[in-house]
Amino acid sequence: MSTGFFPVERIPFEGPDSTNPLAFHHYNPDEMVMGKRMEDHLRFAAAYWHSFAWEGLDPFGGRTFDRPWYPQDAMENAKLKADVAFEMFSALGVPFYCFHDADVRPDLGNFRENTRALEEITDIFAQKQEETGVGLLWGTANLFSHRRFMSGASTNPDPEVFAYSAATIKTCMDATKKLGGQNYVLWGGREGYETLLNTDLKREDAQMGRMLNMVVEYKHKIGFKGQIMVEPKPQEPSKHQYDYDVATVYGFLKRHGLENEVVVNIEQGHAILAGHSFEHEIALANALGIFGSIDMNRNDYQSGWDTDQFPNNVPEVALAYYHILKAGGFGNGGTNFDAKLRRQSLDAEDLLHGHIGGMDTCARGLKAAAAMLEDGTLDGFVEGRYSGWNSDTWQAVLAGKSSLEELAAKVEAEGIEPEPRSGRQEYLENVVNRFV
Amino acid sequence: MSTGFFPVERIPFEGPDSTNPLAFHHYNPDEMVMGKRMEDHLRFAAAYWHSFAWEGLDPFGGRTFDRPWYPQDAMENAKLKADVAFEMFSALGVPFYCFHDADVRPDLGNFRENTRALEEITDIFAQKQEETGVGLLWGTANLFSHRRFMSGASTNPDPEVFAYSAATIKTCMDATKKLGGQNYVLWGGREGYETLLNTDLKREDAQMGRMLNMVVEYKHKIGFKGQIMVEPKPQEPSKHQYDYDVATVYGFLKRHGLENEVVVNIEQGHAILAGHSFEHEIALANALGIFGSIDMNRNDYQSGWDTDQFPNNVPEVALAYYHILKAGGFGNGGTNFDAKLRRQSLDAEDLLHGHIGGMDTCARGLKAAAAMLEDGTLDGFVEGRYSGWNSDTWQAVLAGKSSLEELAAKVEAEGIEPEPRSGRQEYLENVVNRFV
Amino acid sequence: MSTGFFPVERIPFEGPDSTNPLAFHHYNPDEMVMGKRMEDHLRFAAAYWHSFAWEGLDPFGGRTFDRPWYPQDAMENAKLKADVAFEMFSALGVPFYCFHDADVRPDLGNFRENTRALEEITDIFAQKQEETGVGLLWGTANLFSHRRFMSGASTNPDPEVFAYSAATIKTCMDATKKLGGQNYVLWGGREGYETLLNTDLKREDAQMGRMLNMVVEYKHKIGFKGQIMVEPKPQEPSKHQYDYDVATVYGFLKRHGLENEVVVNIEQGHAILAGHSFEHEIALANALGIFGSIDMNRNDYQSGWDTDQFPNNVPEVALAYYHILKAGGFGNGGTNFDAKLRRQSLDAEDLLHGHIGGMDTCARGLKAAAAMLEDGTLDGFVEGRYSGWNSDTWQAVLAGKSSLEELAAKVEAEGIEPEPRSGRQEYLENVVNRFV
Amino acid sequence: MSTGFFPVERIPFEGPDSTNPLAFHHYNPDEMVMGKRMEDHLRFAAAYWHSFAWEGLDPFGGRTFDRPWYPQDAMENAKLKADVAFEMFSALGVPFYCFHDADVRPDLGNFRENTRALEEITDIFAQKQEETGVGLLWGTANLFSHRRFMSGASTNPDPEVFAYSAATIKTCMDATKKLGGQNYVLWGGREGYETLLNTDLKREDAQMGRMLNMVVEYKHKIGFKGQIMVEPKPQEPSKHQYDYDVATVYGFLKRHGLENEVVVNIEQGHAILAGHSFEHEIALANALGIFGSIDMNRNDYQSGWDTDQFPNNVPEVALAYYHILKAGGFGNGGTNFDAKLRRQSLDAEDLLHGHIGGMDTCARGLKAAAAMLEDGTLDGFVEGRYSGWNSDTWQAVLAGKSSLEELAAKVEAEGIEPEPRSGRQEYLENVVNRFV
Repeated sequence: MSTGFFPVERIPFEGPDSTNPLAFHHYNPDEMVMGKRMEDHLRFAAAYWHSFAWEGLDPFGGRTFDRPWYPQDAMENAKLKADVAFEMFSALGVPFYCFHDADVRPDLGNFRENTRALEEITDIFAQKQEETGVGLLWGTANLFSHRRFMSGASTNPDPEVFAYSAATIKTCMDATKKLGGQNYVLWGGREGYETLLNTDLKREDAQMGRMLNMVVEYKHKIGFKGQIMVEPKPQEPSKHQYDYDVATVYGFLKRHGLENEVVVNIEQGHAILAGHSFEHEIALANALGIFGSIDMNRNDYQSGWDTDQFPNNVPEVALAYYHILKAGGFGNGGTNFDAKLRRQSLDAEDLLHGHIGGMDTCARGLKAAAAMLEDGTLDGFVEGRYSGWNSDTWQAVLAGKSSLEELAAKVEAEGIEPEPRSGRQEYLENVVNRFV
Repeated sequence: MSTGFFPVERIPFEGPDSTNPLAFHHYNPDEMVMGKRMEDHLRFAAAYWHSFAWEGLDPFGGRTFDRPWYPQDAMENAKLKADVAFEMFSALGVPFYCFHDADVRPDLGNFRENTRALEEITDIFAQKQEETGVGLLWGTANLFSHRRFMSGASTNPDPEVFAYSAATIKTCMDATKKLGGQNYVLWGGREGYETLLNTDLKREDAQMGRMLNMVVEYKHKIGFKGQIMVEPKPQEPSKHQYDYDVATVYGFLKRHGLENEVVVNIEQGHAILAGHSFEHEIALANALGIFGSIDMNRNDYQSGWDTDQFPNNVPEVALAYYHILKAGGFGNGGTNFDAKLRRQSLDAEDLLHGHIGGMDTCARGLKAAAAMLEDGTLDGFVEGRYSGWNSDTWQAVLAGKSSLEELAAKVEAEGIEPEPRSGRQEYLENVVNRFV
Repeated sequence: MSTGFFPVERIPFEGPDSTNPLAFHHYNPDEMVMGKRMEDHLRFAAAYWHSFAWEGLDPFGGRTFDRPWYPQDAMENAKLKADVAFEMFSALGVPFYCFHDADVRPDLGNFRENTRALEEITDIFAQKQEETGVGLLWGTANLFSHRRFMSGASTNPDPEVFAYSAATIKTCMDATKKLGGQNYVLWGGREGYETLLNTDLKREDAQMGRMLNMVVEYKHKIGFKGQIMVEPKPQEPSKHQYDYDVATVYGFLKRHGLENEVVVNIEQGHAILAGHSFEHEIALANALGIFGSIDMNRNDYQSGWDTDQFPNNVPEVALAYYHILKAGGFGNGGTNFDAKLRRQSLDAEDLLHGHIGGMDTCARGLKAAAAMLEDGTLDGFVEGRYSGWNSDTWQAVLAGKSSLEELAAKVEAEGIEPEPRSGRQEYLENVVNRFV
Repeated sequence: MSTGFFPVERIPFEGPDSTNPLAFHHYNPDEMVMGKRMEDHLRFAAAYWHSFAWEGLDPFGGRTFDRPWYPQDAMENAKLKADVAFEMFSALGVPFYCFHDADVRPDLGNFRENTRALEEITDIFAQKQEETGVGLLWGTANLFSHRRFMSGASTNPDPEVFAYSAATIKTCMDATKKLGGQNYVLWGGREGYETLLNTDLKREDAQMGRMLNMVVEYKHKIGFKGQIMVEPKPQEPSKHQYDYDVATVYGFLKRHGLENEVVVNIEQGHAILAGHSFEHEIALANALGIFGSIDMNRNDYQSGWDTDQFPNNVPEVALAYYHILKAGGFGNGGTNFDAKLRRQSLDAEDLLHGHIGGMDTCARGLKAAAAMLEDGTLDGFVEGRYSGWNSDTWQAVLAGKSSLEELAAKVEAEGIEPEPRSGRQEYLENVVNRFV
């Protein structure tokens, strides 16, 4: 029995010519792209927090939304929220969702009762997954909203907060495993600092490294088959966050011996805040062997904070999927909409508009990316550009069989004075535009 | 015999009350700070490139300076430039200078002749060092200005450019060793990309890793005792540069097995472009064990490019030296003014004003930093804030002797509900302001 | 009878050598600066909202503070809050405070009751002002926090919100007049847009212009003697705000015939968000004849949002006061601390630390600015730099008595080929550093 | 007789399915869009400076390009450059071009000879225009590259530079009139400051206002029928530029009585540097009645300087043209590609790729914009959103027939408590995506 919150039960695919705003125009789950169903490529997930837990606050204003499941700190309302959430998942036909503990259970004021509440909700979710066929892409622990985490979770100066965080992660990993989650994510919104004046970077790094090692140890102990993922973000809420970007996380993993155990969940908006393009972060993670999954959204380029908007720019999204496809596509990962409505978008149907637009944008991006790969012009250009390196001579140099002196002697002897060659950026951008 | 370029031969120390603009008001080399001469703490160096090779161009305008050593691509002018440069070093009393090959020798059009020209200049410099007592803080190769490097030096798609770069580095390392350089620096202005569309990140990483390994191998072979340093910068000239920031360079060093061989040379302006404070980069390098040296300058906070101005904000500089002193001070490193005049500052005396102001600012910063350390309030606060971790119980947790389950059980059993404690940021900022 | 909230009743001046953190080290109200008491120069105000109404939320976390006057939507708690607020004003010895209606009264759910509540609080404030000698620098209406204002106040597409805003402004102007406020301020946090797709710029401009005209009409009608001030900010909460910066507000005032009726209240953090330095905005307002007052705080240069921190950088603050003194100082305006504690600064004493540090920083800045002015080197340099314009010939050109042809003929006839002269930026920065 | 510089003489339109990189796929000049030829809508111009005068320098590197017309300061080479330039204009089929004096004539070292050289080139251009049918969209004076302008042109502290600038503008306006230019543009790259410490904002404003008035007076005197346009830019090369953005220029025009004489030429990259979207600046200029023309390019969102790349993002360009069409389209204005090749794009064909990609992108954007307008959904939504204002009651309020008291009384009497309505941003973004 439907809660009646949404105006429709199922968003149909009607093709690009339809003007029905409550239909998909490009996302057609069963359409084959490079030999695989579109749904299986994109592996969409909806995020519980933005759509159901966030009330429309911003730094200068209070809640704007008005939902039947408010106030949220009551179990009955948590259950109603779950009903509506799964109705949205079903209406959109997303195969997955994601959640933090604090999104789904009421806050009952202490660890023990919160754990029981999470377990109760987990059982409800398990049943709803069964009924709807929707699965869990990843679970995670909210270690940033409550005031106890204000100075960090694993990096807190107070070891009791470290313990509390460890305990909370355990309960969330348990829930994730029970729900068949494909991954478990850690986002360290408070793992960082507001001022170096009260911070010991080295101690906090050791604490954070130890926590992540405990997570990996627990994963193996309980036989959780999913990936452990860290989600980079440079700042906000903290002035500086330790998981700054993909390159920084890589260094952290190497330092703590975790580069083969942990991968990254890359968010578009976080890439932008760190001064990178989204595709840079994906391509880099791929080059470093730690690509896991994406949080799909968009950041306003004129705003200096995390705007978490639904994606709508097909050319940009196409480049992201191009690098994902080059990385072999998602394994356990997927496309999680870590995106929220603008706080002026008050209505139930706005939740549908946001996701429909995002899913259609991704579908177009994926198809364009696949077409670029199948066409091969771009890849061929890159391969050709470096082809001078493929000779035995230069491979030997790369393999460590030469030295500065040898190369200096060679340059002088052969009179090498390299002539530059065009990088053809504009041509390549035009090639991309054939597909988007 | 002086060239007469500068209006004075020596900048005296006249103390804070002097209004003589061509005197130091705070930099007093022999003044003792924490038991060491100020000169030995600060280890100032002047940069050859900005003061003597840069002609005042910007992206929208041509040269504004008018120097007697123009045009620069003639050996006689290079010699005159050297005369003037050492006159400035002496006038300022800086113990060190730094240079790229291309700053000091004319460009004679090919590798062989450029190498000979560099050798000739090196001999001249050796004699001038002898005469003046000025030493070389570091040498480096300019692998970014010439069009041959437009698509990278070690990361170039053309292996001949890799070889040319290797050869050039060799000649610069040779010159640096001959001149008793304390360090050798690599800044990869073109090691990065303009567009991912023509770039293979993985190949370029392998190339860059190989080059740095060759540098380290050559250092050991020739018995160069200085440090090898990489200088991080996130972008400009490239859209993205591989040595993005300290954390990124750390990951690169780990990946290529170089974290015990190479340290970082941190520039204030580059830190800002990467979204960090200068002291963050220094403190992080210290925490990671790779702190080497600094390029002192300032970046305009309202400009999105590398402005390379002389530092003038004492409170900011004090925080930088605070973290340098906490790192044990400079070993082989020092304070290199990678700073240039504004292009409207046309006169010889402007070169003196820029450096005098910068050196006085650093002297004040150093003294304030030392006072903060000697006072101990800041350090004591940090130590106290984390002191909860010092018990055997929590040290065992950090040492890997606990697990998520154990900590979860503890939290539940003991009813741990941590209460947050004030981080006292404003108080700590006020403490700093007692000293600056 | 004190509420006992604060650990001390009065912050004494103890001079720069005191290490008492709950004392002023530089702010000495009676000290004479350029012939005027420091207090009368600086005209400090504390902001009710940040210190007493804000609960420590950020976009990723809930309240961290725990105050005896929570929950705030009860009249009794509003009264307790007022008691504590005036205790802080008295402890700090600030001559002024500032408030929004929503900071000081409970929200009783409708306009009528809120108006009555505001009137009741106004009477209480009047009595407290009498008792403490603290005055009102400015009042203002909060037209941004409540969801009714989410799409704008005067610029709302719904005319009823315009009316509601007008009504609210009236009640706040009435309260401000009753309390002897020196100014009335309008900050348009929601006067802007989230997306141009649903926005009619021209209509909204007309609405906003009409509202400001009504404010001015009402001021004259009720005989309010204070200044009407608009506070520029470029964005946040809105993606784009109409009162972007000083230059934009100037154009708006000219367009609506208000440039002689309204001045600007300039905030450091808002200047930074708009890409300007604080002193730029002050100097520009002075040049345009619309300088009114300042909101003193600091914005983190590495963060892209409004951080509203207490100022602590004396050199920067000195330049701000230098331009304020050049503008003739504050008339009705003053130095309002629109600054909030970091959300980890939980304790009552942190409120004191924040303000003490800010007030000392301003005192040092003011004294340095006065010394720069009295010294005269800076002003003299600028005067000299433009002195070529002072001849009759060139004054006539400026006065409109020449033309392009005449000047072209003159250039050709006289063979004018101007030679550039050094702008001496580094020298001037060193001059500033003699005083800060 | 062709110079043979380009590989083809004419770029054909081959439609979207062609894979010929030297063909248009979307730009079809004769295709009708909203009843007008595409060419007449877009009014493309190519910029002489980037494509023919810029040599590939950046702040860290020298020229990369190698053109047969180097060195540029010889009349013969200037003529060859003109031959090639008009070959490109013809090959692309752009109806217009734009130039600065310094792009097209050699620098012969003094005003008189430069003027004669400009006149000679003007005659050559006149003949080439005749032969090719290409016209002049706008001319302008380069008052920023030469060192004489380093401290400003009209705003220079030296009145002789003011005179020199006036003289130069006169010669450029003469050339523009002779060539039938549709507009004359002023971009004040050096009208601003590097430091406030040596700057008198009020004097410089008066100087700049006087110069622009002289320009308008001269326009009327010589009967030039084109528009006078100011091009906003916030910074670079200067730290701060006076023509910051559209809103700032509007205020300047009002202050100097020029708002009915001068319009703006809006550049995408400059909008971005000022913190605005391109469409914001266009829509605002339209709302203020000062929209003139556009400089089409794109700025890298991750770079903090003016990157001047060819546009390639159709959705963004579509929104720009949407607001241009709503402004009534271009009158005398047009789409000038103020875009340059990446400095690694060395070849003649790269010049073609850049422009072809840009023109195709604009063509797609225009068609999408037209479709959005013809569809009417977006406009209809906006109209409906504000429709509450259309009643006589509210129109009277806007017309000044009400007051704060009256509205307060009405709110209280009628118990007005406005309920917010969804702004539907995501829905509207999805509507846009139906067309791009």
